[in-house]
Amino acid sequence: MRIAVDAMGSDYAPEQIVLGAIEAAREYCCEILLVGDQEEIEKILHKNDIRGLNIRVQHASEVIEMHEHPGAAVRKKKDASVVVATKLVKDRECAAVISAGSTGAGVAAALFGLGRIKGIDRPTIATPIPNINGATVLLDSGANVDSKPRHLVQSAIMGSLYAEYVLGIKNPRVGLLNIGEEETKGNEQALATYPLLKQLKTIHFIGNAEGRDIPRGTVDVVVCDGFVGNVVLKFSEGLAGAMLQLLKDTIKSSGLLTKLASLMVLPALKTLKKKIDYAEYGGAPLLGVDGCFIICHGSSKAKAIKNAIRVAIEFTDNKVVEHIRENIAKEGLLTNDSE
Amino acid sequence: MRIAVDAMGSDYAPEQIVLGAIEAAREYCCEILLVGDQEEIEKILHKNDIRGLNIRVQHASEVIEMHEHPGAAVRKKKDASVVVATKLVKDRECAAVISAGSTGAGVAAALFGLGRIKGIDRPTIATPIPNINGATVLLDSGANVDSKPRHLVQSAIMGSLYAEYVLGIKNPRVGLLNIGEEETKGNEQALATYPLLKQLKTIHFIGNAEGRDIPRGTVDVVVCDGFVGNVVLKFSEGLAGAMLQLLKDTIKSSGLLTKLASLMVLPALKTLKKKIDYAEYGGAPLLGVDGCFIICHGSSKAKAIKNAIRVAIEFTDNKVVEHIRENIAKEGLLTNDSE
Repeated sequence: MRIAVDAMGSDYAPEQIVLGAIEAAREYCCEILLVGDQEEIEKILHKNDIRGLNIRVQHASEVIEMHEHPGAAVRKKKDASVVVATKLVKDRECAAVISAGSTGAGVAAALFGLGRIKGIDRPTIATPIPNINGATVLLDSGANVDSKPRHLVQSAIMGSLYAEYVLGIKNPRVGLLNIGEEETKGNEQALATYPLLKQLKTIHFIGNAEGRDIPRGTVDVVVCDGFVGNVVLKFSEGLAGAMLQLLKDTIKSSGLLTKLASLMVLPALKTLKKKIDYAEYGGAPLLGVDGCFIICHGSSKAKAIKNAIRVAIEFTDNKVVEHIRENIAKEGLLTNDSE
Repeated sequence: MRIAVDAMGSDYAPEQIVLGAIEAAREYCCEILLVGDQEEIEKILHKNDIRGLNIRVQHASEVIEMHEHPGAAVRKKKDASVVVATKLVKDRECAAVISAGSTGAGVAAALFGLGRIKGIDRPTIATPIPNINGATVLLDSGANVDSKPRHLVQSAIMGSLYAEYVLGIKNPRVGLLNIGEEETKGNEQALATYPLLKQLKTIHFIGNAEGRDIPRGTVDVVVCDGFVGNVVLKFSEGLAGAMLQLLKDTIKSSGLLTKLASLMVLPALKTLKKKIDYAEYGGAPLLGVDGCFIICHGSSKAKAIKNAIRVAIEFTDNKVVEHIRENIAKEGLLTNDSE
């Protein structure tokens, strides 16, 4: 399987992107097409031992920066790395694309380049949030704000398939993120969405989920609009980091005996850190576009890129796009809205 | 100062409520009026040493249960503990009221019983969320969903005063919870609210705050609607608990050496737990009603109740309601909307 990797536009690009791609090529025996500034990329490749690996470079002369307007930039910069990488998937040169550049630009490149699956109005980002047993898929975690109930319904169908086919959760429990358990709780959006989710045949809807259900792992897929999802995702990143910092500070400021002990607890702390580390999950698929597009955190390092490539391989091998197409049809939701 | 304490309607009522009130009467030398089932409350009082303390009981024959419709229940049950306790403040028999019963019922009782401060359309719940340096005030954390921009503006003014006069934060940094730093980011609500907040003279508005800014403590007051706030609050409770659980499990499952060490690290863990423990903050004021109404978590134990009474005393001593009245007038926002 050949994967297109956007090597540009993120905090540690291109070096960490290239290093992650090398690791993935070695570990998963996949072909990699690195897209971006050829000279820069080759400089990094030459510094590493890539004998026997199937890695090539496709030059792209432009980069979309974080501050640019996503839609306008994607339309204007035809030779931007993310645009070129996406075209490789459209043209069936590659099976999937990975990008750690501007999320907005990624969404725009995927929408323009790959188009939407029939029946899907808006693609959504599905991010696994570590919980006490594994992970809960949160979607939408930032592709759209001001979503309508029908968009949340589409998210629920897609998120359930992603949890099943990529995260390996059988019959995933799908919940509507809300402020109470009862069907009568919530804002206008949630109240209108609940009965629609209840009618679906292809998902295991368990009703409303509250914020605490995510880390407690009592729900596998949580549906909300991209505003709420993005706030929760960033809050969770911040809180996990802050708690580890607090724990370190607390140990530091206590007596010598505790300090010694803390050195011995270090392995436990490291295991914990790994469990809540987003890099382990690698990337979040943009669900609803007609192809595999994996979005990585802007500050992804090699490990996250490598894991994102693993997600892309599993996503493609398990035919998630085809399953989405099937279930949208089974639900009789093939008509797009007029927007 | 005399405080009315709703002794009924929460998970550990009336016992833990009464015990918390006894501790507060001792520690803060305040007068306590316990409102609820006289017989039950007196039974608990008799089991404790309350000599020299100023604690009385006011009988109320009804309780509003968690599942009842708040507005209807408050209107119907005139002798419900939370209604009677609120009336004591309205009649100036007490300076403040504390309740750990149904949040919705508390909000309804306060609205009907105390009324709103002129210029405030909707009262909001201001909850301190522990961060790396202290706490960030999150509001609204659940009184209203589908808020309008003007409601967020009122929240910002009130939250800033609460942070200053109760949490002791000088010139608190106020942020609008959003999905990006730039003024152009966000949903319709956020985009409409930003320019209104920018115009305010009585707060120190620092622009948009993202989810991660709350635990990192880079903002002191964060404004959002009650749907988003409630999701974040509950997620934060769940995540903090899950992380401590994970750490304990990880230590448990590692070798003997680490197990021994973990016993020695226990004091550090306890300190950490205390830092992130909501009970330390006690309660969240309902800002915008014409009086002091402190809402406690439904599963509050004695410590949380005691601390909530401390918050009520500080809130009243520091004249937060008067400051809100002043600043709403200074901003020229005295006209209520028509709802």
